[in-house]
Amino acid sequence: MEFSIEQLYHGILKGDRRSLARGITLIESVHPTHRVLADQLLDKIAPRAGNSLRIGITGVPGAGKSTFIEQFGMSAIQKGHKVAVLAVDPSSNINKGSLLGDKTRMELLSREEKAFIRPSPTSGFLGGVANATFETMLLCEAAGYDIVLIETVGVGQSEVMVSQMCDVFLLISLIGAGDELQGIKKGIMEMVDIIFINKVQESNLQAARKARAELIHALQFLRRENTWKVPVLLGSALNEKDVLNVWKSVEEFSSHKKDEGFFYEHRKRQAEDRFEFWVNNLIIDKAKQSNALSENFDKQRAKASSMLTNPSSQARRFVEELFRDL
Amino acid sequence: MEFSIEQLYHGILKGDRRSLARGITLIESVHPTHRVLADQLLDKIAPRAGNSLRIGITGVPGAGKSTFIEQFGMSAIQKGHKVAVLAVDPSSNINKGSLLGDKTRMELLSREEKAFIRPSPTSGFLGGVANATFETMLLCEAAGYDIVLIETVGVGQSEVMVSQMCDVFLLISLIGAGDELQGIKKGIMEMVDIIFINKVQESNLQAARKARAELIHALQFLRRENTWKVPVLLGSALNEKDVLNVWKSVEEFSSHKKDEGFFYEHRKRQAEDRFEFWVNNLIIDKAKQSNALSENFDKQRAKASSMLTNPSSQARRFVEELFRDL
Repeated sequence: MEFSIEQLYHGILKGDRRSLARGITLIESVHPTHRVLADQLLDKIAPRAGNSLRIGITGVPGAGKSTFIEQFGMSAIQKGHKVAVLAVDPSSNINKGSLLGDKTRMELLSREEKAFIRPSPTSGFLGGVANATFETMLLCEAAGYDIVLIETVGVGQSEVMVSQMCDVFLLISLIGAGDELQGIKKGIMEMVDIIFINKVQESNLQAARKARAELIHALQFLRRENTWKVPVLLGSALNEKDVLNVWKSVEEFSSHKKDEGFFYEHRKRQAEDRFEFWVNNLIIDKAKQSNALSENFDKQRAKASSMLTNPSSQARRFVEELFRDL
Repeated sequence: MEFSIEQLYHGILKGDRRSLARGITLIESVHPTHRVLADQLLDKIAPRAGNSLRIGITGVPGAGKSTFIEQFGMSAIQKGHKVAVLAVDPSSNINKGSLLGDKTRMELLSREEKAFIRPSPTSGFLGGVANATFETMLLCEAAGYDIVLIETVGVGQSEVMVSQMCDVFLLISLIGAGDELQGIKKGIMEMVDIIFINKVQESNLQAARKARAELIHALQFLRRENTWKVPVLLGSALNEKDVLNVWKSVEEFSSHKKDEGFFYEHRKRQAEDRFEFWVNNLIIDKAKQSNALSENFDKQRAKASSMLTNPSSQARRFVEELFRDL
């Protein structure tokens, strides 16, 4: 490296984009030497991080997340904020991954001095299981980005991950064509703080209102950890006024959470979860580096391919032996 | 348990539905005693499993996967097959999880003697990370189900998991309203063997043809492991003829794969992957049971919640120490 951790640290604190980008590349690296340096950097950064509102944004593909983020981000900048846009899903289409994707998505935002858009790492980070989005967020915060938007695509794993790192979780929804609920699952509904039904116009306003009524009805049956009543907003991500309405709800939720003493409690729990997440991943890493494992692992795996044995019971016997030998 | 593994084994081999259901409940259990029994059962079952065509089915929520599975399953039964329907995603809406979901989905199929529909485990299985779908499939095969349909919802993790356990991977797609590709990502396109554009009728036939052309164009740029040319079929999942067309493609793909010697190679690799998947999960389980870890883990996790330290570097130091002490 042609720069020291000390330099990187000060560069990031000053808000230097190049230092920030280099820092992120460092923490995304799987190289053992880089990991040590990344830890040094992150330990220095941690006490300077945390000063942002962390907003998770989810929705099915085509719901208009990019358009929303572009408009929302621009509004935030006009309000004097600095905005970082990150993505959790490894196959997310921020800047890459999209097959015929428009490279011009978030065109305005990507030209802004006060915006920082970072695609998720391509692959390979701890075997694709883990990703460095949480740590990237810490670096962005230290660099002065006080609004962090974390986009996630899909259902399940990545939503859970985002809900474990944001303060507010936003669902961008659509009026279903024949399927009012767009397959929205109970699991996601329980995580979401604000719902925005996108692509609403004069012609489908009635359908949108019906969809909203159904959602509000459905939300009644979900228990939430706090007393917040999830708002369901209608509008278009292309319309600044509609997006400012969402912004208002985000602010309301954030102060509601702070009033109830829930905001920092939530962050503490998130830090604990993140710790556990890393412990799990690093234990696997470590065990695989041990001699006892690596000698036998390939042989056992080849045996599994005979298909005459069951992989899970074979794995169980293997791990039992491994820990007996350790 | 009021029945022995031996009884369960023979019951499953005879195709007894109750034995099969009990066997699955056993392998989904996290209870240590059950795990030992589950391993015994799975080891006995493994050499008798494998005699099915394993078909993965994915698509965004609302694409019509249930309707397709119902129609496809009924066609399979008419052809003399026995059909098992499983789901990988823990939030999947087979029988549960759907918020306002119709309990009548797959109504015909669920009444069939030759069909077995099994929802995915509710939660908790190895902390939600793992799931027993692969092992459930083995039991179904031993019970004589020669077509296994594995449904997955969402993008990312669960798709990868399904592609790691099926022979054929089917994408149910829609003609996008304004978004032709429905946010289909490169990652999924690389996994998919057959694409069915659903909900095509006279009125949108032209749009459907355009969508197909775009997909075919896009597919050209993807490298595949074999020489199969991914067909893009148009139709309606409600229409038996259209679904039989998909069936034809499934059979063509399957024999293509066998002709090229790829079919069993693929299964061998899947068994290896499944072994590795379990080793990873069990290592975490095991390490967490060790005294060295459990004593210190809670203390360290609480420290992470101070947010003055970085969770990932703290986890790294913790795991380093743990393995030094083991």
